[in-house]
Amino acid sequence: MKRIGVFTSGGDAPGMNACVRAVVRAGVYHGLEVYGIMRGYSGMIKGEFVRMDSASVSNTVQRGGTILKSARSQKFMTKEGRQQAFDQLVNAGIEGLIAIGGNGTFTGASIFEHEFGIPTVGAPGTIDNDLYGTDYTIGYDTAVNTALEAIDKIRDTADSHDRCFFVEVMGRDSGYIAIPCAIGGGAEIVMVPETAMSVEAVIETLQNSWTRSKTSFIVIVAEGEEEGNVHNVAKRVKEAIPQLDTRVTIVGHIQRGGSPTAADRLLASQLGIAAVEGLMNGMKNVMAGIVDRKLMYTPFDDTINKRKVINQSFMRMVEILSV
Amino acid sequence: MKRIGVFTSGGDAPGMNACVRAVVRAGVYHGLEVYGIMRGYSGMIKGEFVRMDSASVSNTVQRGGTILKSARSQKFMTKEGRQQAFDQLVNAGIEGLIAIGGNGTFTGASIFEHEFGIPTVGAPGTIDNDLYGTDYTIGYDTAVNTALEAIDKIRDTADSHDRCFFVEVMGRDSGYIAIPCAIGGGAEIVMVPETAMSVEAVIETLQNSWTRSKTSFIVIVAEGEEEGNVHNVAKRVKEAIPQLDTRVTIVGHIQRGGSPTAADRLLASQLGIAAVEGLMNGMKNVMAGIVDRKLMYTPFDDTINKRKVINQSFMRMVEILSV
Amino acid sequence: MKRIGVFTSGGDAPGMNACVRAVVRAGVYHGLEVYGIMRGYSGMIKGEFVRMDSASVSNTVQRGGTILKSARSQKFMTKEGRQQAFDQLVNAGIEGLIAIGGNGTFTGASIFEHEFGIPTVGAPGTIDNDLYGTDYTIGYDTAVNTALEAIDKIRDTADSHDRCFFVEVMGRDSGYIAIPCAIGGGAEIVMVPETAMSVEAVIETLQNSWTRSKTSFIVIVAEGEEEGNVHNVAKRVKEAIPQLDTRVTIVGHIQRGGSPTAADRLLASQLGIAAVEGLMNGMKNVMAGIVDRKLMYTPFDDTINKRKVINQSFMRMVEILSV
Amino acid sequence: MKRIGVFTSGGDAPGMNACVRAVVRAGVYHGLEVYGIMRGYSGMIKGEFVRMDSASVSNTVQRGGTILKSARSQKFMTKEGRQQAFDQLVNAGIEGLIAIGGNGTFTGASIFEHEFGIPTVGAPGTIDNDLYGTDYTIGYDTAVNTALEAIDKIRDTADSHDRCFFVEVMGRDSGYIAIPCAIGGGAEIVMVPETAMSVEAVIETLQNSWTRSKTSFIVIVAEGEEEGNVHNVAKRVKEAIPQLDTRVTIVGHIQRGGSPTAADRLLASQLGIAAVEGLMNGMKNVMAGIVDRKLMYTPFDDTINKRKVINQSFMRMVEILSV
Repeated sequence: MKRIGVFTSGGDAPGMNACVRAVVRAGVYHGLEVYGIMRGYSGMIKGEFVRMDSASVSNTVQRGGTILKSARSQKFMTKEGRQQAFDQLVNAGIEGLIAIGGNGTFTGASIFEHEFGIPTVGAPGTIDNDLYGTDYTIGYDTAVNTALEAIDKIRDTADSHDRCFFVEVMGRDSGYIAIPCAIGGGAEIVMVPETAMSVEAVIETLQNSWTRSKTSFIVIVAEGEEEGNVHNVAKRVKEAIPQLDTRVTIVGHIQRGGSPTAADRLLASQLGIAAVEGLMNGMKNVMAGIVDRKLMYTPFDDTINKRKVINQSFMRMVEILSV
Repeated sequence: MKRIGVFTSGGDAPGMNACVRAVVRAGVYHGLEVYGIMRGYSGMIKGEFVRMDSASVSNTVQRGGTILKSARSQKFMTKEGRQQAFDQLVNAGIEGLIAIGGNGTFTGASIFEHEFGIPTVGAPGTIDNDLYGTDYTIGYDTAVNTALEAIDKIRDTADSHDRCFFVEVMGRDSGYIAIPCAIGGGAEIVMVPETAMSVEAVIETLQNSWTRSKTSFIVIVAEGEEEGNVHNVAKRVKEAIPQLDTRVTIVGHIQRGGSPTAADRLLASQLGIAAVEGLMNGMKNVMAGIVDRKLMYTPFDDTINKRKVINQSFMRMVEILSV
Repeated sequence: MKRIGVFTSGGDAPGMNACVRAVVRAGVYHGLEVYGIMRGYSGMIKGEFVRMDSASVSNTVQRGGTILKSARSQKFMTKEGRQQAFDQLVNAGIEGLIAIGGNGTFTGASIFEHEFGIPTVGAPGTIDNDLYGTDYTIGYDTAVNTALEAIDKIRDTADSHDRCFFVEVMGRDSGYIAIPCAIGGGAEIVMVPETAMSVEAVIETLQNSWTRSKTSFIVIVAEGEEEGNVHNVAKRVKEAIPQLDTRVTIVGHIQRGGSPTAADRLLASQLGIAAVEGLMNGMKNVMAGIVDRKLMYTPFDDTINKRKVINQSFMRMVEILSV
Repeated sequence: MKRIGVFTSGGDAPGMNACVRAVVRAGVYHGLEVYGIMRGYSGMIKGEFVRMDSASVSNTVQRGGTILKSARSQKFMTKEGRQQAFDQLVNAGIEGLIAIGGNGTFTGASIFEHEFGIPTVGAPGTIDNDLYGTDYTIGYDTAVNTALEAIDKIRDTADSHDRCFFVEVMGRDSGYIAIPCAIGGGAEIVMVPETAMSVEAVIETLQNSWTRSKTSFIVIVAEGEEEGNVHNVAKRVKEAIPQLDTRVTIVGHIQRGGSPTAADRLLASQLGIAAVEGLMNGMKNVMAGIVDRKLMYTPFDDTINKRKVINQSFMRMVEILSV
């Protein structure tokens, strides 16, 4: 293999640039030519390729977002679109791909490889941490810290006014972001998809605490929470406990941005190098990940179909710590 | 004067603790006894007074929120409530007050003084910076920096995905927070109450930029904006320019919390000391402020009735800088 | 067991308060009485015990330093001192101890238990991450992020002036802090005790890079580095390559302070709870730790005598990433 | 005037990029061609000119350092060097200059104009805030906040261990950085060139506080302090009060880096625009500044020869607040 391409795809995540940098530098180190593919599969179809050398990723390790940009591509979901992508890659002499993204990205890469034989090795780039095959995804640690800093600020005002704040954090269908935010943010309650806590239970817990003369509260609500969105939860609580001074905050898209933490830079660097070396060693349709501090390559089939289970003991911790 | 009380009232603001600390230490320095009054007028009515010495404000200068807590008091709006407050103060021997808050707070203090003769000197504690008689209010600089950090993170993801973000920042009826956020955050457009920019004008500007192949945008919307809330603005823009990938973020209550900036700690310290020294010198119904780097005491009547005008040249800067 | 004591000892670390909070809340949750022992063994000897309830640790999870304070105690190294400590504990009815600290702390606890039979369970509180029996110590993640933020700022000025900065980070006798700082901070070289890189090798690497027209450099030096301190390293490099514009920065004690990261708050919370539950289950002379995401109790003998080895692949990463 | 050049010179300061961006965008707005001159006078002599359009400064407003780089030039101090610079400018058709820097930069620009008639308008870019003609310099607010964040972290560890920290902050020959750090950082003492406080006075103050059972202290020392450097001060204090557990921290070069604060971005934007508009209006040998919130152009002769005096009341505040 002489020439490889690297792209970012799906929702952006802090550390994607650190991963791109690692891919480029590892490529250079091993004598490969590396091309950046702009805007994921969309740019692949259009042939938006940029030659990258060591200097092209200088001073990017600390930057949020992705210098390669990201986009969703309807066209790549069609055979015709993938044919165009293949033609562009062949034309540019690109023989293998590094995909930084999540399961949507890997599904596309897998189909593409089966049809056209271009191998892809993936790196897990998503703030949601919901990928099987790695303990942590690139961007997750930063997103949690960003959310936690927001919660720290909210606690200042919650305490000052004896208020009850309902704070929505990201995380798609899992509580991976919500739970450490609850534990580290001193929240009384955390509502995550995994436990399907009812609003009634939330009300009961708040009422009990109120009786014990606790007067300010933080309730963390994961965005994928089944009981409906954070505004509905707050509304129903207010109806049940009118004396509570309730407020809602949605941390939102700021969780996707910002300079990556040390852990995310380290992970992104490890996995970027590992992805290149995996590709050089003939791997395909696998994602590089770290499991129990060891490098692992997990088939895309598994990252897509298997579900990573959240540590149940964390739920118990929220209960103990809010005693 | 031998014994004074200090309280925080209205919305909390970063730097309130630094101001309380300055009041306490200046009081001690000048041989006064200082009492903290909990929860503003509400605690005054209930006699929630706490003796404060120098050590009681150690390690508070950097803390967000207010250790004296804040609350709104319906009761203080009644003569009966104010009578109770007066009785409590007399009972505790408190002869003068330092009020850290905004115009609602000062209005109450003014009425109270006219009725019962207890003098109050105010310090401007609000993130909104909408008080006549001081160039900056305590908490404003921190709130702007907090909002700007959020916008920096949002720009990462806006750029990565070629999106148009509508970001709502606080500020009640003025653009004081929104404008530096727009200038410092590299926003293309800022919608503030002062200029009453129409959504049509926003659409036109975005369309022009889009034609010039600019693909990611940030529009800052002040919360008091007349054209309706940020969700409505985003919706109307999306209808007019369907190819724009729009998103909404409300920075929200995190702007009230967090450790105060250097400028806010300095201002809070200056005005806390000035308020005590003003009270000692027989002042009442005035707010300590800094105008053109000079200490000024402005009558509550003026802080309440006069309107501080925003620098018009700042609006022009947004236009120039987004060229 | 009815009554337990908790103390922090040795160098302070961010997250110690989160751990104390977890100990107190877990104690309350399980029906124990918890006493805070001020200033480590020094306060134990003097009987500086403070009853702690749930509210006493409110709003501490995010605070740096330790509310229980820390101190070194020469006296506890004597039999007489330990006898006094034992008398104080017996007098106060304290039957078991939670020690948050490092190997010095655990050595003392171990001797104390052998002599007087008071059981101690430890939690690893040190920024150095040099404790066998846990993948990460409480405070390590925060210290790395603090150092990295400093390095990010230094890179701004290094790049602007084409300078070579030598940055000393903490870490006693290991490169645990230095290595992620080098990887995440985009450093060209890292000097750590584990590899004993010579100054000659540093000079050679810098000369090679210089020839390749690289003009700004960051060299991370671990404080325990054998080749002597960072000033000497910088001086010898400057003598060898006079055209380099060299500067030295020592990150220093700021690495010990600051609000703990999400990872440190989570770890501190887990281990605080685990320490209490271990003690309740009859354990003694063990440290609670997390190894490969699983809770482990490791005998003090092992934490003291066994050496945790740094991941060698990280050294190779620095080489690849600075290509 | 059709074509102008912009450069940064002297020590780098946060906000320089925001200022360059404002210069470029204001130039574009007013129909000028703008060239970036790399590495200050050094690049001017070598003709390192880069055409800048609006997009070339996208996403730079928040970045520390300077994208135009900075360097000292011995050669520009010679007539021959300046002749070469003039030839390069004439060759490139550059008719006017915007210099972002301090008095060294302005002195050079002034001589250059007298000899060769190329007009320069300056913007004050230095963290030291020691320039007459503007209340604040670009970078000052950020540097103070960076130092203050370091001091906040140090206070955590100072309090935990009952230590006395001597913290050196930057500021050349003035206390502009040191004083707000002392007020905002809760320091007991501040040593600045302006007051020439003796080490004996420091010792006396610390001894008095120690007697009042205060046990942890922060002493801020400005780098230009006459009594010698921070290590000497600490050493002499330790000799006089051996029971003090003293430590030294030098905040150092991190004060030059980092993302600029809101205030610095706003100031940099205002002055960048003002500098361009001044140049267009025929000004030369003047620095744009903000005095009492109003735009002012001050002759280089005055910025160089007049001394801005620090607010004496701030010194008194340190005394009151550490009571």
